[in-house]
Amino acid sequence: MLELSKICQPVQEDLDRVEMRLRSVKEVDYIHLSELLDYSLKSTGKRIRPILTLLSGKFYDYNPEHLLAMATAVEILHTATLVHDDAIDNSLVRRGRPTVYQLWGKEKAVLLGDYMFAEAGALTATTQNLRVIKLFAETLKTISNGELNQSFNAFNLEQSHEQYFQRVAKKTAALFCMATESGSALSQAPEESIQILIEYSYNLGIAFQIVDDILDFTATEEELGKPVGSDLAQGTLTLPAMLLLERYPEDNPVKKIFQNKNKEIDKQKHIELAIELIRNSTIVQECYQVASDYCARACQNLQRLPDTPSRQSLRDIADYIIQRRK
Amino acid sequence: MLELSKICQPVQEDLDRVEMRLRSVKEVDYIHLSELLDYSLKSTGKRIRPILTLLSGKFYDYNPEHLLAMATAVEILHTATLVHDDAIDNSLVRRGRPTVYQLWGKEKAVLLGDYMFAEAGALTATTQNLRVIKLFAETLKTISNGELNQSFNAFNLEQSHEQYFQRVAKKTAALFCMATESGSALSQAPEESIQILIEYSYNLGIAFQIVDDILDFTATEEELGKPVGSDLAQGTLTLPAMLLLERYPEDNPVKKIFQNKNKEIDKQKHIELAIELIRNSTIVQECYQVASDYCARACQNLQRLPDTPSRQSLRDIADYIIQRRK
Repeated sequence: MLELSKICQPVQEDLDRVEMRLRSVKEVDYIHLSELLDYSLKSTGKRIRPILTLLSGKFYDYNPEHLLAMATAVEILHTATLVHDDAIDNSLVRRGRPTVYQLWGKEKAVLLGDYMFAEAGALTATTQNLRVIKLFAETLKTISNGELNQSFNAFNLEQSHEQYFQRVAKKTAALFCMATESGSALSQAPEESIQILIEYSYNLGIAFQIVDDILDFTATEEELGKPVGSDLAQGTLTLPAMLLLERYPEDNPVKKIFQNKNKEIDKQKHIELAIELIRNSTIVQECYQVASDYCARACQNLQRLPDTPSRQSLRDIADYIIQRRK
Repeated sequence: MLELSKICQPVQEDLDRVEMRLRSVKEVDYIHLSELLDYSLKSTGKRIRPILTLLSGKFYDYNPEHLLAMATAVEILHTATLVHDDAIDNSLVRRGRPTVYQLWGKEKAVLLGDYMFAEAGALTATTQNLRVIKLFAETLKTISNGELNQSFNAFNLEQSHEQYFQRVAKKTAALFCMATESGSALSQAPEESIQILIEYSYNLGIAFQIVDDILDFTATEEELGKPVGSDLAQGTLTLPAMLLLERYPEDNPVKKIFQNKNKEIDKQKHIELAIELIRNSTIVQECYQVASDYCARACQNLQRLPDTPSRQSLRDIADYIIQRRK
């Protein structure tokens, strides 16, 4: 079993510095804001996006100060989107802890997210790199657009695989792309190398989200850090649910949940049935195959980058993403 | 009576271009996002912040492309904060129209606001001016911090005048400062001139918010474009309400509203009584005096700027802000 802590060995020291910077974000003059920042930026995530930024920055000449600022900005931007997601979805638990939404309510969650977007933008600006600054803004546009798409399509059964992949590209892969493009652009990488890293992270991001969508059905609540089947409960049609719909077009629990979203039905019963049907079919395997294909595509041009420990780490991350249980 | 359309004569053509740019923001590939942007950026506001950016940019040499982009960004940032405010406060009406929150719900309002923050950031980045880019991010941090302060102090009777002015400086004056600092910084203004314009807009912004807070008691629902007494209903303690509390420390409708926020009392009756007491006292006049003092302070160093029509417009805006009824 691959461990992320071993994979990111080449950038472990820098990652520790990013962690320290994340902790120092809370040093603000307003005590309540400080508490919110402390709680939401505490080390509970995998930090996979800043790891990608750091690894991508190691192939050529980089300014450590700028690379660290950028890796920190990437994680703060990610966290801000999660804080807003939870406020939007009324989610009570994430990563095994109560959400900001649960503890402080909608108002604080929205405003904290806004503050963190700005903090991430301010850190990005310290790199003084206009390409990276523009990338930051465009990426937040793309993510919000993808999230809006998901919101408008909540409880919509008529969605194609293509729509699913387009949405995943926007809501998840875009930030993976920003992570690697910023890291490489900040290290004087030749444009060809930057493009290889963007292609890598685009495919990696899609694979990552597919696995997330699988785990929402196959993992335990403890592994997920939130209830199993959350996507269905929120009306998000993911790849496993789509395949289940295609397999049983008539009597299908997903259909029942989506068509009765405002009615008093026993939603939880249908969710549990959907989970059982998916777990006991070849759907899980098929979805993993799709994710693996994206991972293979992610890695196909990596050998054109300089042969360094970072390059191996990027490959290993692709394997890790498939194997992870949380 | 001063009319804003006459005051902004020196920049009217540019303002029309800003209006066109605001309209073109909706040209995106996703139809639902396009509709949301169209609705929320339609010309219904006073556009006072982009007017400040344009006027501030006219004293020295400016790149029209960059100045227009910045003025547009300032208005989009402002609109984004309003969209989030409405989602947070569950506000149904603004500027006489249903809010995005009312028409599309919380989810869309939060995500649309996020998109608009990013759009404003992207436009700011097109200026390629690092000072202005950093200012943008820091300003959004300051505004969110001020809004958080307001949220944490909702229904809190124990607030000092100082706290009120500090909060107003953050939630309102900061964006006025960004408007003038960005305009002047983009026009090669000497630092001394930039500082004069920052001082102007800081004081102007505070005066603007005080008048807003007065109008919430003294204007009609039609003038306000939303219910009278909204601040009290949301538990926001503004200067007129503070003065009313000090005048009648015992039996006071503000106290009743704030102390019974979760109880079933006839809130509307107390709000109406507070409105009546404030209207029939010298509180309105006193608050206008405070606002006028800030306006006088705003203008005190303007004569050190080049003597141009823009300079006169800045003075006139200070008068307009006091006289306005909406």
